[in-house]
Amino acid sequence: MVGMSSETSNSLFDDAVYARRLTEAARLSRERGLAGLVIGTGAELAYLTGSWLSSHERLTALVIPAEGQPVLLAPSTDLQDLAASAVPRLDIRVQGWADGQSAHRLAVEALGDAHGPVALGSSLTADHVLALQALLPGRESVLATATLRELFTRKDDAEIAELRRAGRAIDAVHARVPELLRPGRTEAEVAADLEKLILVEHEVVDFIIVGSGPNGANPHHSFSQRVLEDGEPVVVDLGGTVSTGYHSDCTRTYVVGGDVDRAPQDFREAYAVLEAAQTAAVDAVHPGVTAEEIDAAARGPIEEAGYGEWFFHRTGHGIGLSTHEEPFIMAGNDLPLETGMAFSVEPGIYLPEKWGMRIEDIVVVGEDNAESLNFQPRALR
Amino acid sequence: MVGMSSETSNSLFDDAVYARRLTEAARLSRERGLAGLVIGTGAELAYLTGSWLSSHERLTALVIPAEGQPVLLAPSTDLQDLAASAVPRLDIRVQGWADGQSAHRLAVEALGDAHGPVALGSSLTADHVLALQALLPGRESVLATATLRELFTRKDDAEIAELRRAGRAIDAVHARVPELLRPGRTEAEVAADLEKLILVEHEVVDFIIVGSGPNGANPHHSFSQRVLEDGEPVVVDLGGTVSTGYHSDCTRTYVVGGDVDRAPQDFREAYAVLEAAQTAAVDAVHPGVTAEEIDAAARGPIEEAGYGEWFFHRTGHGIGLSTHEEPFIMAGNDLPLETGMAFSVEPGIYLPEKWGMRIEDIVVVGEDNAESLNFQPRALR
Repeated sequence: MVGMSSETSNSLFDDAVYARRLTEAARLSRERGLAGLVIGTGAELAYLTGSWLSSHERLTALVIPAEGQPVLLAPSTDLQDLAASAVPRLDIRVQGWADGQSAHRLAVEALGDAHGPVALGSSLTADHVLALQALLPGRESVLATATLRELFTRKDDAEIAELRRAGRAIDAVHARVPELLRPGRTEAEVAADLEKLILVEHEVVDFIIVGSGPNGANPHHSFSQRVLEDGEPVVVDLGGTVSTGYHSDCTRTYVVGGDVDRAPQDFREAYAVLEAAQTAAVDAVHPGVTAEEIDAAARGPIEEAGYGEWFFHRTGHGIGLSTHEEPFIMAGNDLPLETGMAFSVEPGIYLPEKWGMRIEDIVVVGEDNAESLNFQPRALR
Repeated sequence: MVGMSSETSNSLFDDAVYARRLTEAARLSRERGLAGLVIGTGAELAYLTGSWLSSHERLTALVIPAEGQPVLLAPSTDLQDLAASAVPRLDIRVQGWADGQSAHRLAVEALGDAHGPVALGSSLTADHVLALQALLPGRESVLATATLRELFTRKDDAEIAELRRAGRAIDAVHARVPELLRPGRTEAEVAADLEKLILVEHEVVDFIIVGSGPNGANPHHSFSQRVLEDGEPVVVDLGGTVSTGYHSDCTRTYVVGGDVDRAPQDFREAYAVLEAAQTAAVDAVHPGVTAEEIDAAARGPIEEAGYGEWFFHRTGHGIGLSTHEEPFIMAGNDLPLETGMAFSVEPGIYLPEKWGMRIEDIVVVGEDNAESLNFQPRALR
């Protein structure tokens, strides 16, 4: 189903959780000398208020001034949708606006007369960013994510429980993949089956990748009319959203027909390297280790085996109310990992026009090491 | 299906169409003294190149310098998807970037050393906008839509043909609605049927609104578990995307069970006013008339009848490769209509907690007057 019904946008947690997040956001905003935050729709708004309200090209924005009451601006036509969220019970002033009014002017007024840079939510599009900037001449604008990540990257127990649930959901789908990958079927036929299976376990299908043979060498291939052949490698990367808004994301690489020995020799050799690399990266996860060290841990075995050139994407991305969020596990990110951070570990090797392979698990940083949230076998099958 | 297969992102028109649009965009850019355009993914990129390439939080951008060759920047992992678009056959330099590189730096370099403001595509999110601005200190940024609308709002014959096709597709769905609206069914059950019907006629479901009784008074309601009762008004607003990327969008208001006389008296009286208003607005469409005059034409009869307060949204929006785009048909928009512009005419009346009603057709501005693209009866049924 495209979009959810009007009733599935309920808040997930107790109102107190959102109240605390709003207070913390304002505190961090003061600490950093910001005038306040202007947050657009999507995961950041949902994190702070439990609302997935969206108004397309019209401005919906939560303004959190460094001092004073937060204001949620939304088109009057959309206000009724807020009833399902925590917003009516939070210390938020709700202000509707009508077509013809300047919503951006209202947002700037809601910031009050505090000085300092204004932090903008990452989902605000250029039309809104430029309109806000035009009303804030001489004021610096910075990215609100730099402030909010102090909060959302450290998942609490309730959030981790939701990510575990999402992990179980996608595991149940991957458990059914081998029986779907029969010679003679197309990637699209397999994808159609997978769509149904994902919806049994999730509320929404986020994406489906079925990359057979040379298509597996394109990490962002979705699926095509290509026919599967016996013994061919297939990269299957699947993600969905559970009812609470948290995402799953898991990749396994399979061999069509299930007889691993029929896969190409060079592929099987590389796969052993990939398994070792993925294990090394997960094993490297401890509080205090940096994101780029995890990336290096995955890259090491792959480079040593001579495949370094063919692992050309980052090792992972944070996950929560967005499928891709901070922390990004990549070179240049010296962020130290902390307990409660959740992210993917997904090295891959891609030989253009031949085959591809990727193994992806979601892990959560525990007190000592990583808790993996995906349990389907990683060995070829 | 969430997302399209890798093979449906084909260019729609001859390469020459995209080549001409690129040339025109650069020409307009020079005319306006801009350094160039930086266009993000989505409808603007598809309009200029035939590519629906998307890279989520990673930067994909088409840089059109005022002088010199356009550059398409995309993550290396996504470059293979460009093969299905016109890009490889256009005068565009394709430049892949890898995780760890500064894609924003590459975008700024692609602008060359031209002076003047930099125009940013409306779909670029704040993370990209702020990163680009940080690399262009002291340079003004403006919205690229202000330039591109000179092109995309005036549809050519081939585009209008696609919008006609989309109109026929959604008409075929509306033709089936009366049989679905039976007492005792829920809005969600009707929506599930509508999803299947939309997919028979379209490639993608964009949205489904089934607003029965008081839910109809929320113009942006989607659907719920509410049970339909005999004689209740229901607002049904449906949209989809046909394979070429063009959108449909059509609203009709129905009476559950089909016996119009069972609908509330005040509703039936207001509906006659709404029909007159929608007709007046469509009849007002001529080249040279302004967008706000069309809005006023719709609003006149509704205000005269005393319902003005309950028609609280704009009268319409442009449509094409986006469901909502310029021209917006609203007060304050003095844009004169031109032949080839396509937009919705969709007045509504919404009595909170009682009922709602809306009639929406897509129209194209012809040489003399409006061509309507929707043909299902507008009378209550």
